[in-house]
Amino acid sequence: MKIEFRSRRDFIRTTGIAAASLPFLNILSSRALAADPDKKIGFALAGLGSLSTNQIAPALQKTKFCKLTGLVTGHPDKAARWQAQYNIPDKNVYNYDTMEKMADNPDIDVVYVVTPNALHAEHTLKAAKAGKHVLCEKPMEVSVAKCRQMIDACKKAGRQLAIGYRLHFEPNNLECVRLAREKTFGDLKIIDAEFGFKIGDPTQWRLKKDLAGGGPLMDVGIYALQATRYISGEEPVLISAIETTTDPVKFKEVEESILWQMKFPSGVVAHCSSTYKVRGIDRFTAYAEKGWFGLEPAYDYTGIHGRRSDGVPLDLPLIDQFAAEMDDFAQCILENRPTKVPGEEGLQDVKILMAIYESAKTGKAVSLV
Amino acid sequence: MKIEFRSRRDFIRTTGIAAASLPFLNILSSRALAADPDKKIGFALAGLGSLSTNQIAPALQKTKFCKLTGLVTGHPDKAARWQAQYNIPDKNVYNYDTMEKMADNPDIDVVYVVTPNALHAEHTLKAAKAGKHVLCEKPMEVSVAKCRQMIDACKKAGRQLAIGYRLHFEPNNLECVRLAREKTFGDLKIIDAEFGFKIGDPTQWRLKKDLAGGGPLMDVGIYALQATRYISGEEPVLISAIETTTDPVKFKEVEESILWQMKFPSGVVAHCSSTYKVRGIDRFTAYAEKGWFGLEPAYDYTGIHGRRSDGVPLDLPLIDQFAAEMDDFAQCILENRPTKVPGEEGLQDVKILMAIYESAKTGKAVSLV
Repeated sequence: MKIEFRSRRDFIRTTGIAAASLPFLNILSSRALAADPDKKIGFALAGLGSLSTNQIAPALQKTKFCKLTGLVTGHPDKAARWQAQYNIPDKNVYNYDTMEKMADNPDIDVVYVVTPNALHAEHTLKAAKAGKHVLCEKPMEVSVAKCRQMIDACKKAGRQLAIGYRLHFEPNNLECVRLAREKTFGDLKIIDAEFGFKIGDPTQWRLKKDLAGGGPLMDVGIYALQATRYISGEEPVLISAIETTTDPVKFKEVEESILWQMKFPSGVVAHCSSTYKVRGIDRFTAYAEKGWFGLEPAYDYTGIHGRRSDGVPLDLPLIDQFAAEMDDFAQCILENRPTKVPGEEGLQDVKILMAIYESAKTGKAVSLV
Repeated sequence: MKIEFRSRRDFIRTTGIAAASLPFLNILSSRALAADPDKKIGFALAGLGSLSTNQIAPALQKTKFCKLTGLVTGHPDKAARWQAQYNIPDKNVYNYDTMEKMADNPDIDVVYVVTPNALHAEHTLKAAKAGKHVLCEKPMEVSVAKCRQMIDACKKAGRQLAIGYRLHFEPNNLECVRLAREKTFGDLKIIDAEFGFKIGDPTQWRLKKDLAGGGPLMDVGIYALQATRYISGEEPVLISAIETTTDPVKFKEVEESILWQMKFPSGVVAHCSSTYKVRGIDRFTAYAEKGWFGLEPAYDYTGIHGRRSDGVPLDLPLIDQFAAEMDDFAQCILENRPTKVPGEEGLQDVKILMAIYESAKTGKAVSLV
């Protein structure tokens, strides 16, 4: 806990992410919550796919400050199974057309949006309109404009918006941030980050451009991008990218693999890859003047393992990252403090992801200054 | 030996490198050599710097088919020390103005050019004019035009020209080539290759543009490029690159670090980095559909270590790579067969290195089709 706490504070102080100008929050509901020390924040899950089923709902059972109180789904059969498993009353079950009625439901404080990427804005806007806080899976959306709509909607509603960046709560990743900020190996110079997997079912929404907004870059490449940003503590100013597809049947709408390289203001450079065609590529290494450190696997929720060039162990205990992420958001709401993973953080990633695609398309480096 | 031999043949067959159209060789001298089974190929070292002193001369003592018989140096004091250490007669010592007189010296069959990059053509041309075979350190030269002059000069002289690509003789690198060609992990998709070190003495020729032709890319990045070429067995068709310098005093003439990414005809992509500013970055990993394999360190001559995703050990015994490279060249001459690392191989690297610099300069992807 000590490391996590210290690193978290370091992280916030040095990256300034949590200091992003947040909307003035309507804190009446938060005050009401804070008045009851046993109150748990009620989460409704919007989207009952594999991530909700296998990770988020089980994680909710491990949280201290959250409870699963509601469901939003377009599949009544799924709702029935979930209601039985998690003891959810009928009155707390919504579909995407009825979710605005949540406004009258005090059991639900937060909507966790776990739907396909291109539906995040629609579902976030509905939740905000119902007066709920929103935790939204990454990538935040498929365009900068839609991310801005989400930020504006939550600001207008006086509710918090957080993006599901679970690794901002993961001890090994936080330890790497600490090694970078404290310059344990001197000034950072090069970051190498890669995340990909071999995708299965060819009919899934991740392979459809209109729902996913892109291929592996949107889905997992964003973790490699995130790593370069939280390790460097800087924002990229120059990007160039190359896409490739070797199976044009399966990858007819989105890229199969993509490489991109970035330059940061201090002169740090990073190169990344993301793919749906390779088994097991999940790592980053930060190279500094006096040595290096990194994680492999780096982004997984079933195991993370670190290495340092000086041989000092880098293997902090695995935590449930989803539980940590949700508990933190619940505490932000209970204590009326801003999340360190706000909509502005999600928007910044989407800006960069779009620049990566633009460079891959045009063959020209894209400046983000 | 079995693995090396098999891999070497595989390598030649599948890459076609050795099949590059070689000049018609004047084989009279080779026949004469072959007639004497005890004949060793006489090597003159041109350039008595650190690589010659610490690696090449000691390696020559371990060869089966070579002996150190001559010296070319601009420093008479160095010559005297080397003559004493290696028992070299006065008549076999030359400087860069007299080396053409080697034509009359039957003790010297090969000139190994170990001078700064931008002097390779000048010294190769002189050696060829003296009727000597040439083994030249990498990078071959600092421009495509000068590489072509070297190839033409050796062709005209009827002598072989090899480039000092020692890793083409290194068992672990050859084993990785075998894993790629035999598709042990399925089709290759992404290669990640990085080589750099923290450079010391700020006055050394490696930091001078006119002698080195560039920075870490020319000196060590070429190994990362080579790895992508011999592992993929293909030539890049699209390249984009980004340079960075954080210490403009030390790196006022050449780049401090450079990243580049490449696309190959099959759709394989590679991303690479090279730097003079980081301690210990020396690796490649090849990611394929069913797993990955790679080396770290990958390019060193004091230790190479491999990993495979299936856990099978990849740690073949270290050999003296310089001795293997020189013995192979000696055998090529004795047996009148072409080297697998001819001038054409060096030229191809220099073409690509120039495209990398062009892309970094223009911010545009460079097509090599």
